[in-house]
Amino acid sequence: MTSAPPLDLSNYLRDVPDFPKPGIVFKDITPLLADPVAFSTAVDRLTEAIRPYNPTHIAAVESRGFLFAGGMCERLQASFIPLRKAGKLPWKTFSESYDLEYGADHLEVHTDAAAPGDRVVLIDDLLATGGTAEASLHLVRRTGAEVVAACFVVELDFLGGRKRLHGIPVHSLISIAD
Amino acid sequence: MTSAPPLDLSNYLRDVPDFPKPGIVFKDITPLLADPVAFSTAVDRLTEAIRPYNPTHIAAVESRGFLFAGGMCERLQASFIPLRKAGKLPWKTFSESYDLEYGADHLEVHTDAAAPGDRVVLIDDLLATGGTAEASLHLVRRTGAEVVAACFVVELDFLGGRKRLHGIPVHSLISIAD
Repeated sequence: MTSAPPLDLSNYLRDVPDFPKPGIVFKDITPLLADPVAFSTAVDRLTEAIRPYNPTHIAAVESRGFLFAGGMCERLQASFIPLRKAGKLPWKTFSESYDLEYGADHLEVHTDAAAPGDRVVLIDDLLATGGTAEASLHLVRRTGAEVVAACFVVELDFLGGRKRLHGIPVHSLISIAD
Repeated sequence: MTSAPPLDLSNYLRDVPDFPKPGIVFKDITPLLADPVAFSTAVDRLTEAIRPYNPTHIAAVESRGFLFAGGMCERLQASFIPLRKAGKLPWKTFSESYDLEYGADHLEVHTDAAAPGDRVVLIDDLLATGGTAEASLHLVRRTGAEVVAACFVVELDFLGGRKRLHGIPVHSLISIAD
């Protein structure tokens, strides 16, 4: 009798060539979302990767980060912090800009979402060049909380985005080398 | 010995006057997201409300619907279908427009997200005038699947949005009468 091999989550990504523009191969996570076992496995693994940091809060980047954060918060009994595009959060906010290929965008957090003494983990589905992740890091720090780790479902290693997290521990479920 | 009264989730909403514009009182759900017990209670109640419909899929509207759908899919072993704004989904899509106060917006679903025989429940955080909900209903039906119910965290009863779901059963955790 042998036990089943661990689930290879990379089998639940779909490559979409030339999206969002020519030359880019987009990693589509909808097959993973469509499979209840693969989805729960992803949330389990993200949770176990960050549990050692004893997080009190999970800060998720709109909108694909939201897909995974709820289950992580439930497993860890942590608070859910939404990080949203400019103008979406109704209360007082801090705002950080980050560069896009053309121009810049803004990410916001409620000023009362966390406070000194809180231990926050960042979650997003994808770590690419790291611009959004870096803005998220700066944004959460403005609440006075500590960012103790960051985690991602997919990391595009070859883009080196991890270094824009400035030494914060990074955990990714699927690393793509080239 | 008495048992604790059931949690009143309306205590976890924050009224924000004049957001997104003068005269509107916005129901901010971030206090509910910040409280792990209240958040899990909301996901539990949404799940139990729709379990009798035997859903195979949960279709969530970007982006606040995403917050609740993951936990519902895990509890029901259902597939997660993201309904997204135009241009966000990478694969082949169906698209539906819906009216905004000024102009129109579009919502999209992957054409392979569901199929005839599937039983889909819609989830969003808020039912207001029902325009987004109606577009979601039409969109999911274009995959050939049946929409068996819709559920919301907050329903603004006085806006009558429920009638734009054309007889689909609607469940809301918090109804606001005026």
